[in-house]
Parts: sequence; C-alpha cells; structure tokens
Amino acid sequence: MLKTIPKQSGDSFTLKKGQYLKVIDIKGEQVSDLVVFDAENHHEKLSAGKSMDFEESILLTTGNYLWSNLGNKLLKIIEDTNGRNDFLLAPCSQETFEIMYGIKDFHPSCFNNLMNALKRFDIPHYDIPTAFNVFMNVQFDQNGKISVLPPTSKAGDYVIFQAERDLVGALTACSASDSNGGSFKPIQFEVLDSL
Amino acid sequence: MLKTIPKQSGDSFTLKKGQYLKVIDIKGEQVSDLVVFDAENHHEKLSAGKSMDFEESILLTTGNYLWSNLGNKLLKIIEDTNGRNDFLLAPCSQETFEIMYGIKDFHPSCFNNLMNALKRFDIPHYDIPTAFNVFMNVQFDQNGKISVLPPTSKAGDYVIFQAERDLVGALTACSASDSNGGSFKPIQFEVLDSL
Repeated sequence: MLKTIPKQSGDSFTLKKGQYLKVIDIKGEQVSDLVVFDAENHHEKLSAGKSMDFEESILLTTGNYLWSNLGNKLLKIIEDTNGRNDFLLAPCSQETFEIMYGIKDFHPSCFNNLMNALKRFDIPHYDIPTAFNVFMNVQFDQNGKISVLPPTSKAGDYVIFQAERDLVGALTACSASDSNGGSFKPIQFEVLDSL
Repeated sequence: MLKTIPKQSGDSFTLKKGQYLKVIDIKGEQVSDLVVFDAENHHEKLSAGKSMDFEESILLTTGNYLWSNLGNKLLKIIEDTNGRNDFLLAPCSQETFEIMYGIKDFHPSCFNNLMNALKRFDIPHYDIPTAFNVFMNVQFDQNGKISVLPPTSKAGDYVIFQAERDLVGALTACSASDSNGGSFKPIQFEVLDSL
C-alpha cells in the first residue's frame, strides 16, 4: 500500500526478510532520511561507517548493501533511478537549525521526526544513527570540503531496497531548506512482497 | 603520565572538561581508533555524521571540533602535527577480517579492543560508534571510491585534543595490516592538565 509522508514529517515501517521498500520522490528535489534496525535486536542498526568500509565507497547506489554496526547486511539497493544519495551527514536536528541556520525557535527536523516515528518500536532518540539520506546531493572535494546541493532527483524518481533480514525502520520527508532545493515536498513509500 | 598501548591492543581513559588528550605515533605509520562518550550519559557519544555535518568537511584536523550524536561539542583538535585522520570508516572488527581479508580465525581488531577497554565504564559493544581514526589515511575520489593508504605520520607525530565536557573513552593501536603500512606498532597517549 502506497503511503504518503507529508512535508517535514516522518513515518515508520516494518520489513520482512526479502520484502522491498520503495522510496519515491513524487515532486522531485526532495530528500528522505532512512534508518533501519534489526527487528529483534534494536541494538543492531544501520551503520554508515561499516557500509562505506565494506562497500569501499562514500557513494552507494544500485548493487550496494547497507550494513549494520555489528557487521551484517541489512538492505540491498535493488534499483536507484536517480543515483545520488548521501551517507555522510547525520539527520538534521534542532541543533542543525540553531548552529547552521541561526534559528532559535522550534524547527521541524529529520531527527525529531525519526524520533517520533520510532516510538512505536520503543527505540530511543539517542539510538538514531546517521541515516541513509535518499536523494541527498552532498558534494565533496579532494580536501574533504562538503557542500550540500539541491537533489538531482526528478518527480517520480525512486530507490528500491530489499531487506536482508527482518527489520523495523523510519523515514522522513526532510525539513532542511538547503538539502531540498529551497522548498519542502512530500515523500511516498511502499512495502512490497515482489517487484 | 605517558601510557603505551601495545601493538594490536587498546586502553581506556577519563578526561575532565578542559583536559588534553595527546595521542602519539611513536614509531610512525600507525593508526589509533578513538571513541569518547559523555562521562555522565553514555548514550551521548562521538558522531562522525554530526561532526562532518557541523564542520562541513570529511577531513578534520587542527581547529575542528568532534561532535556528539546529540549535537554537542565533545573534543576540539588543538594540534595535529601529521594532519591526516579519518572519520569515514568504522573500527575494524572480526567481520572486517573475514569479509575484506578472508581470515576465518580470530584476529585482533579495534572493535574488540575498544569493547574490552570500555567494559570498565559498562559501555556495551553495540554502542561503539564510528571512531575518529587518528593518523588513518583514507583517500577518496570524486566518485566516492575509497582506498586505504599507509599513514603519512612519522615517528613522534601527535594529535592533541581538548575535552569540551567530562568524557570517558578508549583508543587503540589498530590491528588492520592495510591501515598501518603492513606492520603493527604501539601507540602512546597522555592526559594532561595543561600544555
């Protein structure tokens, strides 16, 4: 069943081993932060450091696996019609808007939205790892300097992941202006038994 | 007091706010994986994703801060005589040697050594984050392809960190051949009240 995540919000899902998660940028230029945890042992979770190490790449796309902090495969990227995702940067949080944008009041954030979405699994906020940032366009130069550009994704672009084990997780429609070409759009997702 | 970490092992430390941690590559070409946690709340810990985000760089050296998963500064890099460290790759673990090197038997690893060193603080293995890999020379190209080269550090090179709050932590003399120019050497460290 296709679900829509309204702009600047989040949602949760469960995935059985072998099932597919399809994440769709329905309007274009919209990032979705994705985190997953082992369904039985929530201490085993997505790890950017293990994934970049074992895949030998900063940039992960079709054919790459996303690995756990305990060295196991959690997801395989089956299809990626856009081809640019990020695994460097932590989910935007209240501190992101205070420190990077000078905003003092409450601002919607992926961290807050992931926290709320993960409450149904009793996963606490401090256990949220660096997300796999679907459609996020983070550029870097040889000196390591990072810059966040608008996503290259067009309306209808999608990424399909397949679960390597039973998982629980959450994903967002990202709340940071710079990451989304200056405007906030919804994200759609779907859990599928077959393609 | 200067302490020596024998090759392929680890040790722990406590740091009061304002104190300095000096990590010394006494032989040259030897990596040390460093993790820290808030002394009171072990759920607040080093975050590569937050650090690269807030410092806007993959490569961190003198003047950069290392941030926590909850958006606070944990350490400042005061001096770095070598200038090349890594924050992309998770600590080498038993799985690293099985998957990347084809080794089936037990192999010393940073993950295992950090786990043992952190037992005195009751910090479990699954809470070990991606370490700040002092002296590690991870190169990357514009396509994101990662390669691990021997460290550029010479005998006597060091990095000095200052604690932004009370911390507990652990560090290693790394156990992965490719990361250390093909041989395993000790690491020295010292906690200092002033420089």
